Amino acid sequence: MAQTNQRIDDKRLWDTLMGFAEIGATPKGGVRRLTLTGVDRLGRDKFQAECEAIGLTVRVDAIGNMFARRPGRDPDRLPVLFGSHLDSQPSGGKFDGALGVIAGLEVMRSLNDLGIVTEAPLELINWTDEEGSRFGHSLMGSGVWAGVFALDKAYALTDTEGVSVATALDGIGYRGPEPAGPFKADAYFELHIEQGPILEREGKQIGIATGAQAQVWYDAAIFGQDSHAGTTPPSARKDALVCAARIIDLVDRTMRACGEDGRGTVGQLLVLPNSRNVIPGEVRFSVEFRHPSDAEVNRLDAEFPPAAQAIADACGVKLELTELFKIPAQPFDPDCVGLVRQGAARMGYTTRDIVSGAGHDAVYVARHVPTAMIFTPCKDGLSHNEAESIEPEEAAAGCQVLFEAVVARANRRL
Amino acid sequence: MAQTNQRIDDKRLWDTLMGFAEIGATPKGGVRRLTLTGVDRLGRDKFQAECEAIGLTVRVDAIGNMFARRPGRDPDRLPVLFGSHLDSQPSGGKFDGALGVIAGLEVMRSLNDLGIVTEAPLELINWTDEEGSRFGHSLMGSGVWAGVFALDKAYALTDTEGVSVATALDGIGYRGPEPAGPFKADAYFELHIEQGPILEREGKQIGIATGAQAQVWYDAAIFGQDSHAGTTPPSARKDALVCAARIIDLVDRTMRACGEDGRGTVGQLLVLPNSRNVIPGEVRFSVEFRHPSDAEVNRLDAEFPPAAQAIADACGVKLELTELFKIPAQPFDPDCVGLVRQGAARMGYTTRDIVSGAGHDAVYVARHVPTAMIFTPCKDGLSHNEAESIEPEEAAAGCQVLFEAVVARANRRL
Repeated sequence: MAQTNQRIDDKRLWDTLMGFAEIGATPKGGVRRLTLTGVDRLGRDKFQAECEAIGLTVRVDAIGNMFARRPGRDPDRLPVLFGSHLDSQPSGGKFDGALGVIAGLEVMRSLNDLGIVTEAPLELINWTDEEGSRFGHSLMGSGVWAGVFALDKAYALTDTEGVSVATALDGIGYRGPEPAGPFKADAYFELHIEQGPILEREGKQIGIATGAQAQVWYDAAIFGQDSHAGTTPPSARKDALVCAARIIDLVDRTMRACGEDGRGTVGQLLVLPNSRNVIPGEVRFSVEFRHPSDAEVNRLDAEFPPAAQAIADACGVKLELTELFKIPAQPFDPDCVGLVRQGAARMGYTTRDIVSGAGHDAVYVARHVPTAMIFTPCKDGLSHNEAESIEPEEAAAGCQVLFEAVVARANRRL
Repeated sequence: MAQTNQRIDDKRLWDTLMGFAEIGATPKGGVRRLTLTGVDRLGRDKFQAECEAIGLTVRVDAIGNMFARRPGRDPDRLPVLFGSHLDSQPSGGKFDGALGVIAGLEVMRSLNDLGIVTEAPLELINWTDEEGSRFGHSLMGSGVWAGVFALDKAYALTDTEGVSVATALDGIGYRGPEPAGPFKADAYFELHIEQGPILEREGKQIGIATGAQAQVWYDAAIFGQDSHAGTTPPSARKDALVCAARIIDLVDRTMRACGEDGRGTVGQLLVLPNSRNVIPGEVRFSVEFRHPSDAEVNRLDAEFPPAAQAIADACGVKLELTELFKIPAQPFDPDCVGLVRQGAARMGYTTRDIVSGAGHDAVYVARHVPTAMIFTPCKDGLSHNEAESIEPEEAAAGCQVLFEAVVARANRRL
């Protein structure tokens, strides 16, 4: 396959990333750019200004998603979409989300520099509230766009201070006039840091995401009996924490029995009354399993609840296990994935197929539009952390593959 | 052994208990009478008034311990002490502590009614801050009295609002003129609810406490690595909570291997960052073991830390285990225990020897004065709980045994 000389501008990409990282910069080198706050507005305003400065036309929809359009040669062709999100976790890093948006901006700038007009129009997207940190619902903008989540329900969500999404959107002037819904598009590409250790560990420059994992999430509550740690003999104990501990061990063993593709995690746990010399009477915790295969997640969903119940029975405590949701695996579009693979190959990058373990806007968009994702390594696999870090050449490689895939898709013969 | 007709007044005892339970009464039927607060002062004032009304002389020492003295026939004899505490947990019950003090008051009243003057003087004690809920140091008054805890250190302790013990004592007018230290005494008896399920389960009216358990307490901290629950494969996980779970299971198994006399508890646990889709990077928790035998606690203290470390090593995480304290078993005085046993037998009560699993003022007093404790059942073994409950006849039986033991000790031939 012939290499081209069409290169994005590595330095400009990095400088722009660093420039956006100043918006909401934290003392520890991270970013705090919570969705629909004044800081988010600064990021959005800067994004809009940079887009308009290079001739793009920006639309905003009713949930605040931003679409920056570059016309194609053929106005009748469906647009090729790409982007990610500019909001961050409360103690987030510089690259989670921002890389995909800023790399998209660099694609647009490079096309201008190179004098390329694609056949299809291009649209660069900044999705609203991917993180879910403020209003408790991640993938809000893409979820509303994809029809997964009703606009009115999204509007009514409130933060811890009682401010609704609708009020927050109006407050920063980003409740746009466009309807928030899935318009017809030719493809969607999203570049994102891996947020895991696999690419770094294997020394690969590009992860070719073939889809997203299936997931099942539960809330667990165990009810035993508070009692005095000094006076309650073993035979009279109903220790909710001992039961929880055995279920946590079960989650880990179940995950490991699935091999390296399995995921099983208890991330959140609350003990009551949480007093040093009181046997815990109540423990509440989260459980989730993920796997690339629907069949495997269905098997886990069939086998885990009775296995947990057997542990609770043996401990003499009551278990309430509530399934919050089960989402099927979302395979990405083979043609779009193929364009990512070809773009990386053309540049001579080392690659690895990977299944996205995190939720991404692309997973919802994929329900309506042929979609693919590009992953780049991040240091120690760290993300959702102010220490999140990538190298300039890693960002550049990801951006270059995005450029290759977008241009190839937008210029393909129909 | 001849039965006597000397009986305490069951109804007066219960009515007085219910009267004190109104001070700091909670809507759920419990008591909130935190040490050295205005509510505690009301309880102390009422206690002093009731004592003085029946001719007792009340002294207060420098840490607020109250001693209500009834003269004996022989002014040279050492006093026989008895009592407990009137302070409560934040959401405490009506009987934890109060039973021992109010029953002591009933003993004094009954002696008056019966026209009995004992050979030795009697002193009824209300110890300051047994619970430790406000200033973080349980058994404060008896600890200072016994010289386990320096008066100046106690004075300097502060509550969550920065109020010191010294300021709080002055604020309610209970920093007394008497030195707080172990004066010579002939014996100490304390009646207390069991705060455990053993007596109720076995249908026994009286627990004859032969001593207090040995204990060893630790703080544990596990350091792994926060990472994304969806993207981090099993081989790359350093899950602090999975390690903690296996150590919690170890604590429980270790306890059960000791038989019914063993105690092993993780009561307090904190997960960081405690987010549903983040693998926990840090977990902090308490560990404690108790057993009537010093040898057994020493063995646990030798075997548990390396066993926990082996679990941490296998999990690939770092464990910091800090021993907070190890206290030896405190046997009670055989003669005093014998008087409790004889008193219960004289009344025909069903009994059982028991080792105190909770901390009590008696355990510190026993370092200086021959001591014994009397336990009565409590419903479902519940204590430190607003639902704490006992029957009037259970209170009466405990009070009657206290009366028997005190009178026998105070009238014994020297």
